[in-house]
Parts: sequence; C-alpha cells; structure tokens
Amino acid sequence: MVKSLVMKEYSTYCEQERDAVYRAIATRRDVRSGFLDEPLPDDLLHRLLAAAHSAPSVGLMQPSRFIVVRDLAVRTTIHSIFRDANAEAMATYTGDQREKYATLKLEGILEAPQNLCVVCDPTSSRGHKLGRHTMPETAVYSTVCAIQNLWLAARTEGVGVGWVSILDPCRLRSVLNIPEHIIPVAYLCLGYVSQFASEPELERHGWEKRVSLEEVVFYDGFPEEPKS
Amino acid sequence: MVKSLVMKEYSTYCEQERDAVYRAIATRRDVRSGFLDEPLPDDLLHRLLAAAHSAPSVGLMQPSRFIVVRDLAVRTTIHSIFRDANAEAMATYTGDQREKYATLKLEGILEAPQNLCVVCDPTSSRGHKLGRHTMPETAVYSTVCAIQNLWLAARTEGVGVGWVSILDPCRLRSVLNIPEHIIPVAYLCLGYVSQFASEPELERHGWEKRVSLEEVVFYDGFPEEPKS
Repeated sequence: MVKSLVMKEYSTYCEQERDAVYRAIATRRDVRSGFLDEPLPDDLLHRLLAAAHSAPSVGLMQPSRFIVVRDLAVRTTIHSIFRDANAEAMATYTGDQREKYATLKLEGILEAPQNLCVVCDPTSSRGHKLGRHTMPETAVYSTVCAIQNLWLAARTEGVGVGWVSILDPCRLRSVLNIPEHIIPVAYLCLGYVSQFASEPELERHGWEKRVSLEEVVFYDGFPEEPKS
Repeated sequence: MVKSLVMKEYSTYCEQERDAVYRAIATRRDVRSGFLDEPLPDDLLHRLLAAAHSAPSVGLMQPSRFIVVRDLAVRTTIHSIFRDANAEAMATYTGDQREKYATLKLEGILEAPQNLCVVCDPTSSRGHKLGRHTMPETAVYSTVCAIQNLWLAARTEGVGVGWVSILDPCRLRSVLNIPEHIIPVAYLCLGYVSQFASEPELERHGWEKRVSLEEVVFYDGFPEEPKS
C-alpha cells in the first residue's frame, strides 16, 4: 500500500501507461529479419525521428543528424560493405563457432524498405561546449540516446529496428558523403514487422546468454573482484 | 483511416500506451534541482536498473555495470570533483557568457539521495566480439542505450535524472575504485521530484535553443551544405 501511494504522489503516469514504457523497454528487439515490404508512412517516420531528436544532449547541443536511406542502389552498395566486413569477421572464428556465426542473420539492409544512418557532429558550436570540457565524448553519447529513443518509439508502432555495426565506417562515409568531422554512430534498418521475438536472436541461436541483473550492480564503488 | 488501420495491424500497443511512450520521451528532462529528500525504495531502483540492463548490447555483450552511490561521504567527494571541474570550465568563458554560466545549476549530487555511476567493460569476452570487429565503440554505445532506458523509465515513476559530465574522469575512477580497463560513461543523480520542467533548463535560462527537426534530417546522403 505504501509503495502504491508513493508512486501516485510523484508520478503523473497511471499504471497502464507506466507499464507501457516498461513493456517497450523489455520487448524491444534487435531485428534482422521478418521486415515487411510496406514502406513506413512519412508521418510515422517523422514521429520516430522527432522522438530521436528530443533526446537529451550535452549542453543542449543536439549534435545528431539523421540520414534516411530509401534508395535501393545506395542500400545495395551498403549491403556489399556489410558482406565484406562480415566475411572478415567470420574468418576470425574457428570450428563450431565459425559454423554458428555463418548461420546468423545479422542485418536487414535490403529487406527493410528504409535504413537510417545516425551521425554526430561533435564540432558543432551549439551548447557552447557546456558539459564537454571534461568529457567531450558526451557529444557522441547524446546521439546514442537519440537512437534508443527511436528504438523504443518504433517498438510501440510495430516497427522493427536493427543496428548494423558490421560495416567499414570509412566505406560507409564515402557512400553517404559523410564529411571527415562527422562521426557515423549507427546504421539502422527500419521496417514494419508482423511480430517481435520473445528473446534476443543471439540467445535464441545459442551465441550468448543474458546475465542476471545482480551480477552487474554494485554499491558505492567498483568491487575488488567483480561478480562477472 | 488508412493510417489507423496500419497501426492496428502491426502494433500491439493501444493509442494510450503508445502515447505514454512518446510522452515519456518528450517530457524527460535533465534534472539538476528540485530533488526530494525521500530516498527511492529498493524495488523502484531495481525496476530502473532492470530497465537499463535490458537495453540492446552489441553481440548480447551486456557490458554495462551500475554503481549505486548512496554514501554521503562518497557523494561529497564527488561533489568536490565537480566543483573543481566546474570552476575550470567557467574560466573558459568571458563576459556575459561567464556570468550566465555562473547562474546555472548543473548537478544535484548532494540533493539527490542516490547517484548512479554507469560504467562499461569493453574488454568483456561476452558476445565473442560479434559486431565489434569493425566498430568496437559499440560496446560503450550499448551502455549509453542502457542509460536512456533508465532515464525514460524514471520519468514514468516521477523520478528525475540528471547526467553530470563536468567531472574529471580520473578522479572519479579513483573515488569509485574503477579499474583502468573499465570506462566511466555517465554519472547520474537520481531522485523523486515533485514536478518536471516543461522545457530544458538550458533553454529556459537562455543558454541555448532547440533546433527544429527539419534542420537535422537528410535523405540518401549527407548534404554538401548542411542546413545546420
């Protein structure tokens, strides 16, 4: 009873609304397959980008830039960059692990009707460097916050998002005309999916298992011998 | 009508639930003042940490570690680290800008009954390097996704979160016993607040204004002359 009173006092969210946010967080998936052919309507894409754009940013710098990639020729080129990087990555594994890696579907660049390259301009004078004197990396971190906003909003719209990091960033820059001073942070595949998997793909395919929360929470300092 | 049908077909979220997620995203604030004295109950803190821990991570690596800081002596030491860094930062501004900077409240380390240092172990063998051959920085990015999850969950619980980046990371490491191979990503202040501001603090105080979404969205490539 006490717990419930505390929540009601400080939060303007009813239980159903609060649970909706937790559910988006818990059921969000990195989607690499099952994208439907139907392109996202412009207004939906706009909502997702607005969600990203309203993310926290150091010094209110708003350093994130969003490159929507619909053109099939561009996506085909980027898919070939993935193929090369993936072949190199696969060559680093041996035996059973290599066989397992080969079975994994790790991107949906061509299946998803739209891709999104999210980049960061860490040289922007916006924010007047506030918060970046000691930790300048927070500019890029602001862009990652934007990506996670988009990912959660997409979940509620029935839109799958997959983050492809198996790409040579130099070649990606070249294809998308990204200048030297701009940092490519994420390359995402976006599209409607008919359903979301109940667990992460990599767990389902036996590549890795999730660890418990207890193993990664410490109090008042990092432990001498961490639990994981 | 067509739009509404499309949403119903692919999403299992009703309009109220979807709007709750968008509302959390739009009304989340970087909170530096107004924290209430009442500590967060353990079960609420656990929900927030669980939300963070269920963030996407490259290769299902789950590299994030969470150091809950409640001890007042530890927070007092970290507050002094902030004070020094803030004085150095202030010294880089001149004239009106320095005067304005001096009026800004940029952290709630002592007012918020609990702080949270979120760190990343980029050396973990978990995930077997999947996704990190070409873009190893995605380990740290995974930790930032966790932070944004926590920030949004907190918003629905009436809990304010403030990210303090005006800290010397070396001194922070020392106080919290963080080993060399672990990256301090964020230092957060967490606590109940009685209300959330309707706009970002830095905008309200005239430090910076938000830009429109249209200025930061491009199509199929970065423009030769970006709009912002």
